[in-house]
Amino acid sequence: MLKFEHPLTEKVRTYLRVEALMQQLHQSARFEAPLDYQLLFRSLFDLMDVFEQIHIKSDLSKDLEKQKLAIKTWANVPGVDQTILAQILNEIEENFRHLMATERFGLSLKEERFLSTIRQRFSLPGGSCCFDLPSLHFWLNQPIEKRQSDCKQWMETLAPLHHSLALFLRLVRGNGQYKTHVASNGFFQSDAEDANILRLDIPSELGVYPMISGHKNRFVIKFIEFETAKAYQQDVEFKLAVC
Amino acid sequence: MLKFEHPLTEKVRTYLRVEALMQQLHQSARFEAPLDYQLLFRSLFDLMDVFEQIHIKSDLSKDLEKQKLAIKTWANVPGVDQTILAQILNEIEENFRHLMATERFGLSLKEERFLSTIRQRFSLPGGSCCFDLPSLHFWLNQPIEKRQSDCKQWMETLAPLHHSLALFLRLVRGNGQYKTHVASNGFFQSDAEDANILRLDIPSELGVYPMISGHKNRFVIKFIEFETAKAYQQDVEFKLAVC
Repeated sequence: MLKFEHPLTEKVRTYLRVEALMQQLHQSARFEAPLDYQLLFRSLFDLMDVFEQIHIKSDLSKDLEKQKLAIKTWANVPGVDQTILAQILNEIEENFRHLMATERFGLSLKEERFLSTIRQRFSLPGGSCCFDLPSLHFWLNQPIEKRQSDCKQWMETLAPLHHSLALFLRLVRGNGQYKTHVASNGFFQSDAEDANILRLDIPSELGVYPMISGHKNRFVIKFIEFETAKAYQQDVEFKLAVC
Repeated sequence: MLKFEHPLTEKVRTYLRVEALMQQLHQSARFEAPLDYQLLFRSLFDLMDVFEQIHIKSDLSKDLEKQKLAIKTWANVPGVDQTILAQILNEIEENFRHLMATERFGLSLKEERFLSTIRQRFSLPGGSCCFDLPSLHFWLNQPIEKRQSDCKQWMETLAPLHHSLALFLRLVRGNGQYKTHVASNGFFQSDAEDANILRLDIPSELGVYPMISGHKNRFVIKFIEFETAKAYQQDVEFKLAVC
């Protein structure tokens, strides 16, 4: 089964990218392989690029507020577990507080001398050689404990974002339920209602992947054959959750 | 001991970058970790960027010719092992032939449909998410044998470069011998004669790294303290090979 996700708004698109970059950052900060530092700094600098373009703290805090209001409508509804509801509301409020208490994300990373020294050259093709970035080369020769502790410090500045984003995306993903659909001749369209993310499960033996366009109220899925890169002309049975 | 290398010409600077990118490519093409594909495609696309800017095949073939002429001057010199000399000359000629027999490097990679589909978006911050690059996501879900075999095909187009470059850099590095020097007050300068690479061994406990400037006939080394990023004011005993 091939699993795909597609954001239906520009904001959620950024959220999913940040989520992926965060995962890469956390994975590579363990330094399990000698070249992990490549992915570590790429992820960190990519995140800093995103934070410079988008005020993610403000977007995310508004979205958490919206989730809180939506969840509150379930209060005192018969059959709804009020303990779980209270727990989620509590979790949202706690994350919201932490989020609001932090500086703009990426600000202290930008001021960090070592990071700012290597950031620009790092993105050149092959630009992380020792002669381009001798200070990076020095740092890479430091004991793993020192490198891990530096990484921990950098990542800690992003922890409120990491947790708030994980919570928001967990709530959003939990909103949808997978249903089976058929794309006739490889084509499917549908309406949605203020949706954020489409999630798809596609049988991998068909050799197809989806091309999705749309926005929060309407979307179109076309299936493409990987080998030919052309539109798939047969019916595709797939699972879809509109979240 | 901290090991550094510094190229003294623009051409050798490119060679060393390509060497580093090739190593990253070969390492990540094993797919030992789930995120290795990130480094794989970065290295591949970085190499393609370099090949578009620089006609490396022509540069490298001229450099191999030069090495051949230099080595030939050792023919019939007493005390020089003529068997080894003949072996090296043979190796150079063989690599030269393979190098000349290939198309411009990166050309067939550029024409490869899958690679060209993902190349542009891949360099966006977080741009390798499944919704940005569904075909990449499909490919990543292919069995490891299929992925490795694709990589093998891509890398085979670069094999003559890989081998010729390795040979040239081996010969260049073999030209120099490490000698101990002292950088008074953290400063060292010297003349060189048509040199390509400086190689340095620096005691890591000093907490310094070198900043090097220069060209093939003259160079300057300044030692910088990592913690302060300022010039190191004390003497540094280090080893240097001018290659």
